[in-house]
Amino acid sequence: MAYFVGIDLGGTNIKAGVVSEKGELLNRVSVKTNADRPMEEIITDMGKLAKEAIADAGVNESDVAAIGIGSPGTPDNKAGTLVYATNLPFVNAPMRKIIRSVIDLPVYIDNDANCAAMAESVSGAAADVADSVTITIGTGIGCGVIINNRIFSGFNQAGSEFGHTVLVAGGVPCSCGRKGCFEAYSSASALVRMTKEAAQANPDSKLNEVIEERGKVNGQTAFEAQRRGDEVASKVVDTYLEYLSEGLANVINTFMPEVLLIGGGVCNEGDPLMVPLREKTMSKPFFGPGVKKTEIRVAQMGNDAGIVGAAMMGKACFDDKLQG
Amino acid sequence: MAYFVGIDLGGTNIKAGVVSEKGELLNRVSVKTNADRPMEEIITDMGKLAKEAIADAGVNESDVAAIGIGSPGTPDNKAGTLVYATNLPFVNAPMRKIIRSVIDLPVYIDNDANCAAMAESVSGAAADVADSVTITIGTGIGCGVIINNRIFSGFNQAGSEFGHTVLVAGGVPCSCGRKGCFEAYSSASALVRMTKEAAQANPDSKLNEVIEERGKVNGQTAFEAQRRGDEVASKVVDTYLEYLSEGLANVINTFMPEVLLIGGGVCNEGDPLMVPLREKTMSKPFFGPGVKKTEIRVAQMGNDAGIVGAAMMGKACFDDKLQG
Repeated sequence: MAYFVGIDLGGTNIKAGVVSEKGELLNRVSVKTNADRPMEEIITDMGKLAKEAIADAGVNESDVAAIGIGSPGTPDNKAGTLVYATNLPFVNAPMRKIIRSVIDLPVYIDNDANCAAMAESVSGAAADVADSVTITIGTGIGCGVIINNRIFSGFNQAGSEFGHTVLVAGGVPCSCGRKGCFEAYSSASALVRMTKEAAQANPDSKLNEVIEERGKVNGQTAFEAQRRGDEVASKVVDTYLEYLSEGLANVINTFMPEVLLIGGGVCNEGDPLMVPLREKTMSKPFFGPGVKKTEIRVAQMGNDAGIVGAAMMGKACFDDKLQG
Repeated sequence: MAYFVGIDLGGTNIKAGVVSEKGELLNRVSVKTNADRPMEEIITDMGKLAKEAIADAGVNESDVAAIGIGSPGTPDNKAGTLVYATNLPFVNAPMRKIIRSVIDLPVYIDNDANCAAMAESVSGAAADVADSVTITIGTGIGCGVIINNRIFSGFNQAGSEFGHTVLVAGGVPCSCGRKGCFEAYSSASALVRMTKEAAQANPDSKLNEVIEERGKVNGQTAFEAQRRGDEVASKVVDTYLEYLSEGLANVINTFMPEVLLIGGGVCNEGDPLMVPLREKTMSKPFFGPGVKKTEIRVAQMGNDAGIVGAAMMGKACFDDKLQG
């Protein structure tokens, strides 16, 4: 039995755990990132955390085959570096070199959204298929693409950024500098924006009742007001789902995954979200007569996706005998 | 030396040729499709044409390793069938079975836009890289994706339809049934539409002078009027290139190919097209600091792309020991 360590590097915490070769998470440990430190210190702590995870899981270091790291930004897995990361002090960070000086195991590195998709592919809602895409709806739109059980992210590991494809040319500004990106119309932040605008424009809408009760606007506000029979809220939800479904149909026409997974907090809305979303989305792609169709499912891995996905990305690279 | 036969199935003609394992086209033969015949007859003619191509090239049939077919529509290469084709009478067409009854060689089948990308990848403008995307601008927008020297088209071979990703939500109707597709704003047909609209709205524009001289509107009209110093024409070209560049930036953010190829008649405009198109496109994608960038080039293979690409797709499947 071989084990793999997964490290999930975030802006606030670094999480790690030991994962079996079948994708079962044995344990979780974590340490503060303290992102204002020099990158060498943070990376050294990642190596120490890997050692701690192995000890905590009660497995022998000699039974661990490799370490996988999921990180924001763009890695260079061949060179073993993190080329850059948003909101973290990494510039051509020599992750492999520093971590191997702490714990001498093969080290592999990929983007966190890609690792989340890998977790679903190995242990989650797409475990039964070889080709899947995972779209995570949060502050932004995360996208991870699995082709033949491997992460796909282009020649420079910066691809599958489907959140930053323009859906509404000339539309609202996106964090990436363009206007009208999928992310700017379909993220949870976009839903909050639409909800706020509708609440302000319609003082009598129950949107305002919900906002007052809860003291804030979030991704649940419009769904809750809709449940109370508010027509303005229903229109917000419908508009949001229309944009989201256009973007998902774009994903399908592009990648034609056997399974398309939707993740993120908004999925907690259940059927009121998923039933119309499936219907809207599946009416749009270009399936010729007789052509097999993509299936839309809800992602399963939740908070464990980062660690499990990083570990299973590491396993895939190790199995492929890549330089680690 | 092994050879491969490439067959390019079109609505008007079926073209075939023998291609060396290095991607050199030895000869070209063709026969009318006569698309109103039963599919069995058309496919039998494809088999006969393969035999004719081999005889015409002067190679021994025993030196031919496989036959590759490029077809419109969606194939099922595993089953050896064409699931369906637009404007052709194919429904679950048993291509492999019928062709092998005429000439007993392994038979592989893929989409024609994918084969065109394969031709560029083996013998054309992307021969030096493993990952490329070829966008062909014609009546529609063709898209072929090469990942690690192999065609990528999803689990059902119906993917990489980037022409049918919505760029202008709620925009002009597309042939696929959606509104605002990349194809509806960036194909040669879209440029013709924009040119006609501008000519009608601006009777004094030199667009009308060019149209009168040439007796028609086509993809060259706006560029020619622009060369004559017409501001309305310059605006048409600029608007067209703005949409095209948005779509190409979407392709880059999605696939991050090492090389992005642009093909189709509009590329004959040369620098007046390519210089602003490169500039507009490369300002948009999400390249983090230090991340390697995609290079934009003009496709080279022209009319031979269909035959050479089909043959080289056949070679790739043969090399991968796929069922043929």
